[in-house]
Amino acid sequence: MAESEIDLAIIGSGAAGIAAGIYAARRSLKTRIFEKEALGGQTALAIWVENYPGFKKIKGEELMQQWAEHLKEFGLEAEEANGVAEIKKIAGKFELLLDSKEKVQAKAVLIATGTENKRLGIPREKELYGKGVSYCANCDGPFYKGKKVAVIGAGNSGVTNALYLNEMCKKTYLVEFLPQPNCDEIYLPQLEKSGIEALYNSELTEIKGEKRVKSLVVKDRATGKGKEIAVDGVFIYVGLSPRNELAKKLGCELDEKGFVKINGKNETSVKGVFVAGDLGSGALAQTVWAAGDGAKAALAVYDYIRKL
Amino acid sequence: MAESEIDLAIIGSGAAGIAAGIYAARRSLKTRIFEKEALGGQTALAIWVENYPGFKKIKGEELMQQWAEHLKEFGLEAEEANGVAEIKKIAGKFELLLDSKEKVQAKAVLIATGTENKRLGIPREKELYGKGVSYCANCDGPFYKGKKVAVIGAGNSGVTNALYLNEMCKKTYLVEFLPQPNCDEIYLPQLEKSGIEALYNSELTEIKGEKRVKSLVVKDRATGKGKEIAVDGVFIYVGLSPRNELAKKLGCELDEKGFVKINGKNETSVKGVFVAGDLGSGALAQTVWAAGDGAKAALAVYDYIRKL
Repeated sequence: MAESEIDLAIIGSGAAGIAAGIYAARRSLKTRIFEKEALGGQTALAIWVENYPGFKKIKGEELMQQWAEHLKEFGLEAEEANGVAEIKKIAGKFELLLDSKEKVQAKAVLIATGTENKRLGIPREKELYGKGVSYCANCDGPFYKGKKVAVIGAGNSGVTNALYLNEMCKKTYLVEFLPQPNCDEIYLPQLEKSGIEALYNSELTEIKGEKRVKSLVVKDRATGKGKEIAVDGVFIYVGLSPRNELAKKLGCELDEKGFVKINGKNETSVKGVFVAGDLGSGALAQTVWAAGDGAKAALAVYDYIRKL
Repeated sequence: MAESEIDLAIIGSGAAGIAAGIYAARRSLKTRIFEKEALGGQTALAIWVENYPGFKKIKGEELMQQWAEHLKEFGLEAEEANGVAEIKKIAGKFELLLDSKEKVQAKAVLIATGTENKRLGIPREKELYGKGVSYCANCDGPFYKGKKVAVIGAGNSGVTNALYLNEMCKKTYLVEFLPQPNCDEIYLPQLEKSGIEALYNSELTEIKGEKRVKSLVVKDRATGKGKEIAVDGVFIYVGLSPRNELAKKLGCELDEKGFVKINGKNETSVKGVFVAGDLGSGALAQTVWAAGDGAKAALAVYDYIRKL
């Protein structure tokens, strides 16, 4: 039976949350890690990770499993499918109601809920989610074997996911708003010879289909003309949106894009509430950076609790 | 033959420098990494690293070798024993004179020279350096097999190095200025049962010996009384001092402790000069944090160069 009076509640088990857990446990803070979904955050959704120093090329999910094993060395495990439903600050402490209905009291909270892929907000995007509209090629890609797909956004996520989908799909389109791709140069030669049909300076304005995605309307931004392309699936990678619900409930100050404002010690505007990783206003969407930020935050929490 | 007109000169090959190299190379910046000494910075000097997520327990040197292999995947190698002797900013570019006498011109400079162990500044410390006085148990420890040693400082570095030395030395003292150790709690049980003789609230005031270290004078801070303890070697871990010579030469603004002031994009007060890792004023002395900071800095350099 896990303890319900703890020092630190870490919310989220992506790179920031797990790294923070390793550091907190090593400092013997009574810590629990709550995860609404599955372990590993955005990193676990990446097909391949090639830029976390020490691992030349590893599947995102596998990397995060190794981190979870590392965390276990210090007696700590992320509690999957057990998110924080409610959170309140009462008399200087935090009361959390978990999805499991358990109540937990913590001296400090570290929110590391990160981001999710941004929604475009275009017609039929919401209605066709799970019916051809996806934000995770790694999760849903295999359903599109031998079919036609489009990836929206040519940043690193968009390009690497397009390359992945293109290995199994009959046809892959890549639609980018800017006049050129915005990914690491290292992917450009691969993209060039992949056979992916890239539409730059182009905007997805509408998704069509009744029960499932049938086609996309893509506007050429130079001419203003739209054309319809037939696809079975569309994977959207147009940036990240902060998962700030819990921070908002606690009254943390946000920046104009909805990320949580923090200082150099990862402190938010609410005493005892810390933020690490991509939920913070410095969000970089890089595993190694988020991990470093989580480690830093855990050490700051340790100092905070020691001084209580 | 390496190129002498480059985009980015990274100075230092510790965690920050190598991570920055991986990120810069992936963005196809023409990059070289100059290293005055040997690859790996402070991390490579650590006996064991147990808190870099993904590696449960690995020798510091081995971890950094794996990073160097990772870097090679992107066609980049740190140039060991080839530091930067001189550096000047001329007409918006940087001119570097290497220890090899080669001249290099770079559009931007990322200084990641980190820190070195602080000197105490006490009598005979300087004269007996290499003759019983050491700042690296990993490098010099094996010479003290079966002998008596003292470690000064009971932070993480001091404690882990004392535990390491104690495995092979006849007697190990641990001298700490504060009334208690300042390391991660996880080491306390090990320290307890190790047989190491800990002297807390104690200050090393003098090292004695003519040709080699013979004894130490340690003052009890409660009573003010000094006592002499006979040792063959003393390993000093009392904090870190920034290696800021090159940043100073370039005119970068420093904080009161000599660390370089940087903003959220790792920019210093001198345009085109970036700092990452422990040389910056946020120094945390943690591998994963320095790596994340290096990655962040490389992405900032990329944006800077693209806009030139």
